[in-house]
Formats: sequence, C-alpha cells, structure tokens
Amino acid sequence: MSESTPQPTPQDRLDRFRKSIDNLDAALVHLLAERFTLTLAVGRLKAEVGLPPADKSREAYQIERLRRLSDESGLDPAIAEEFLGLIIKHVIRSHEQLQGAGVADPEKGTAQA
Amino acid sequence: MSESTPQPTPQDRLDRFRKSIDNLDAALVHLLAERFTLTLAVGRLKAEVGLPPADKSREAYQIERLRRLSDESGLDPAIAEEFLGLIIKHVIRSHEQLQGAGVADPEKGTAQA
Repeated sequence: MSESTPQPTPQDRLDRFRKSIDNLDAALVHLLAERFTLTLAVGRLKAEVGLPPADKSREAYQIERLRRLSDESGLDPAIAEEFLGLIIKHVIRSHEQLQGAGVADPEKGTAQA
Repeated sequence: MSESTPQPTPQDRLDRFRKSIDNLDAALVHLLAERFTLTLAVGRLKAEVGLPPADKSREAYQIERLRRLSDESGLDPAIAEEFLGLIIKHVIRSHEQLQGAGVADPEKGTAQA
C-alpha cells in the first residue's frame, strides 16, 4: 500500500459498513414483503379449495431446507432458528386469518394449528 | 384465454407459489448471513477502537428507516416489528460478545446494553 494513500479513519470504515448494512436491510424488507405476498396467495388458494392452513409435511421440508441453507450460508444458528420461527408463525397466522375470515368453503376441510 | 389452454390445477398453482417462496427464502437466508457478517465486522471495529456496542442514535435511525421501508413495501407491520426486534437483538448480542471476548481495549470505553 502506498504511503500517500490516506488510511480510512475508524469512522470512515464504520460508515462504509453501515451503508452496506442499510442496503442489505432494505433488500431484506422488500424480499420479506414479497414472500408474505406469496404466503397470502397460498392462503387464499388453500381457503378457496378447502385445504387446511397448516401442512406439516411442507413445514418439515421448509425447516430442514432453511436449516441447511443457513448452515451453508454461515448464518448464526440462533438467528436462523429465530428467523425460521418468525416465518412459520406468520405463515400459519396468515392462513388461519383467511380461513377465519370465511374465505374457505365451510363444507371442506378443517383448520389445523 | 384459449379454450385449448389447460387450466392449472390448484395443486399446480400451489406448487408454483411454493417454488417462488422457496427461492425468496433462500435469498433471505443468504442476505441475513451477509448482513450479520457485516454486523460482526462493525462489532470488531467498535471493539478495536473502544466504541460501545450499542449506539442509540444509530438504532433510532435504523428503526425509523426500517419502519418506513416496511410500510412502502407493504410488509405486514406485525412481521416488520418482529423482524426489526430480531435484527436489533442479535446485533447488540454480537457486539457485546465481541467486547466480552476481550477484543476491546480495556482502557477505552464501556459497553452499553
């Protein structure tokens, strides 16, 4: 490194990290919004055709897959588990709200917690 | 729509939504991993130069910004708040662990919760 290159100060380095963090957070929020828009579409479809809001085999598949992806990506397992819990809780809540709102055909299916 | 076009069955529609959800979840996990890699870099820098792990003005800025982005993106406010809480909790935990691990110069600064 040339001696004439000014070294970034700790504040410069902090500001650069924070700029990248802010960009990633914006991406995360927008992807989450899109993810839950699709969740809503799935919930509407399930309610329409009388499928129960929860699907244990799909849930098990997602948990296994997200754990593997978290591991591969180097995401802290504690954060990964909490994120997974947040997703699953709100997915089930979203589907249940739709069924509860009477979108479902009451003749078909029953809600599972 | 032409009569010869076969209508997708509810299962076809469900499968397509789930494929997109799986893609978004993979993106979310990888972005979260990257976000917390940067968090770790910030924590190391703070510990190195003796800055406290928590920074109330930065936190307030992030909360306000993430709420605005969530609102703009159409993300359910309940999910947004929980996601925000998850991020902040693990950011502070990450910074505290680094300070606790003695990366900080003990002559400089003190940890704030």
